[in-house]
Amino acid sequence: MSETEISSLGEFGLIDSLTRGFKIKNTSTLRGVGDDCAVVDYGEKKTLITTDLLLEGIHFDLTYTPLKHLGYKAVAVNLSDVYAMNGTPRQITVSLGISKRFTVEHITELYSGIYAACERYGVDLVGGDTSASVTGLLISITCLGEASEDEIVYRNGARDTDLVMVSGDLGAAYMGLQLLEREREASAGQGNDFQPDFAGREYLLERQLKPEPRADVIAELRGLGIHPTAMMDISDGLSSELLHICKQSNAGCRIYEDRIPIDYQTAVMAEELNMNLVTAAMNGGEDYELLFTVPLTDHEKVVTMKTARLIGRITKPELGSRLVTRDDAELEIRAQGWNGFSK
Amino acid sequence: MSETEISSLGEFGLIDSLTRGFKIKNTSTLRGVGDDCAVVDYGEKKTLITTDLLLEGIHFDLTYTPLKHLGYKAVAVNLSDVYAMNGTPRQITVSLGISKRFTVEHITELYSGIYAACERYGVDLVGGDTSASVTGLLISITCLGEASEDEIVYRNGARDTDLVMVSGDLGAAYMGLQLLEREREASAGQGNDFQPDFAGREYLLERQLKPEPRADVIAELRGLGIHPTAMMDISDGLSSELLHICKQSNAGCRIYEDRIPIDYQTAVMAEELNMNLVTAAMNGGEDYELLFTVPLTDHEKVVTMKTARLIGRITKPELGSRLVTRDDAELEIRAQGWNGFSK
Repeated sequence: MSETEISSLGEFGLIDSLTRGFKIKNTSTLRGVGDDCAVVDYGEKKTLITTDLLLEGIHFDLTYTPLKHLGYKAVAVNLSDVYAMNGTPRQITVSLGISKRFTVEHITELYSGIYAACERYGVDLVGGDTSASVTGLLISITCLGEASEDEIVYRNGARDTDLVMVSGDLGAAYMGLQLLEREREASAGQGNDFQPDFAGREYLLERQLKPEPRADVIAELRGLGIHPTAMMDISDGLSSELLHICKQSNAGCRIYEDRIPIDYQTAVMAEELNMNLVTAAMNGGEDYELLFTVPLTDHEKVVTMKTARLIGRITKPELGSRLVTRDDAELEIRAQGWNGFSK
Repeated sequence: MSETEISSLGEFGLIDSLTRGFKIKNTSTLRGVGDDCAVVDYGEKKTLITTDLLLEGIHFDLTYTPLKHLGYKAVAVNLSDVYAMNGTPRQITVSLGISKRFTVEHITELYSGIYAACERYGVDLVGGDTSASVTGLLISITCLGEASEDEIVYRNGARDTDLVMVSGDLGAAYMGLQLLEREREASAGQGNDFQPDFAGREYLLERQLKPEPRADVIAELRGLGIHPTAMMDISDGLSSELLHICKQSNAGCRIYEDRIPIDYQTAVMAEELNMNLVTAAMNGGEDYELLFTVPLTDHEKVVTMKTARLIGRITKPELGSRLVTRDDAELEIRAQGWNGFSK
């Protein structure tokens, strides 16, 4: 890879070189990069806005995160928030802070991942801000999406007797992170000869490094004519997100341990690391699956779903939020999600 | 000021404590903080989006920037971009990266400035992301605004014979920065007894620390029934912005040195620092004034403007972009704006 110092292009040159080849895909994008603002047009639709900040040393470690994957993931986590409102993502802005150790080639690699996610999900990059930073890399992405008013699903609509559903499987992204951390420690001081051992664990790595927003779940729900009563994506862990929905909906829940979807590789890895598998699945975070509730009357429809699974039910608030174990004990659900400030 | 560690509240506690008292002002804001996305509704209007990233050590120095002013400025520079499209700002999202040396009181102080700007300009804070950072403070703000399609002013509409206008005065924000830097150096090693000497220079400090977006210019233009052909705000310096408009409009320009608006304090400070005054006014940056062009037929109207001044005219592109000096020499205009990557 050749190495071009960013200072040789300057900010505008860098932006030009990064955005030149990118084509606008949405008719709602009237103007993209290159003016004071981008201009979008949602006519009768509502506009959804979400934003995420990813910081080196906090949210990602470049010793094991390829820049292309990082760019892809930075977009994916924002799109996931728009799908979690039952909306369609349309535009993103990308702001970067870049320290001196990064070259134009590095940033181009990062952008190739950003563009790959935009291509895959039909999203336009319409603006941003690029700056030098004192230390490390930071990525701040804002995404706009659209939805008609009656399509939008908030977190506060779950009602007693509603069914609780979750897409995909849980805990794999967390196990992927454990695996990467373990191999990084094993490689310390071993130089370039070290070969990390990821055989048979590819799924865990993919879940950690290249999560996909669940557009397919939204499509399946629409196909079945199901309108969730509450929905959010799982970024901090199932426990934390369940408590958000229950708190905002003034409800409780019962989640059945034996219904929590867990991949085989996740289970093997948990055993190897001597970790409690259910704890990892409930609290691992970064799965970017969708957690949603549907009326009991949709039971026949949801049990046919290919992308999501029934894991429990909503109760009256005074019954609390509990995990029902395989031996019928009830454990209070507590948020043990990430808290970067306490580290 | 008491000192509360951010870890004692956690991310959600911090967001709650910061956003609890903030009231929604715009009917277009359907849902603010607290779900996966905010929801806004612009009906038949177009949506404008702009974003800015401010990094400690690059864009601000906390040794002389009060946190409240920093919050205000971070919002102001985004609103300025929306006004520069002839739009009305409506919503912002605020993402923060916060290192361990900041307390809850610090961040509350920063937010008081963010809220002050939102109050003053009628803007709703609708979301964001808050994270620990390894070093220093970073602020990433995205602003949404609205405008009807025929109101929006781009950078590419300037035509031969159009008049070039600029609001306010130029170079003061740059001189404010020089002043702050000088006093910071003078204070080095002098401990808490040092008293910086800002007497008679308050305007320069205000221009650097608390710029105001020029909503009043937009209002005056509307009142006079003037629709600019091109417009942008001056963040990188008049020279740099003139070249952007000329390049995107495929035009040239003649700017008259004796027409460039400069405040008395700016002139005194330039003399004291032995700097070329016109160079400072043309290249200083961070003035956040509006630069715009209007058709020649609006001449009678624009000369009555209180908030802006005629400084030159647009020409055919082959005539280039030139500054006409007091002695009728023509100097090529070159961008000498900031380039953080070359430092």
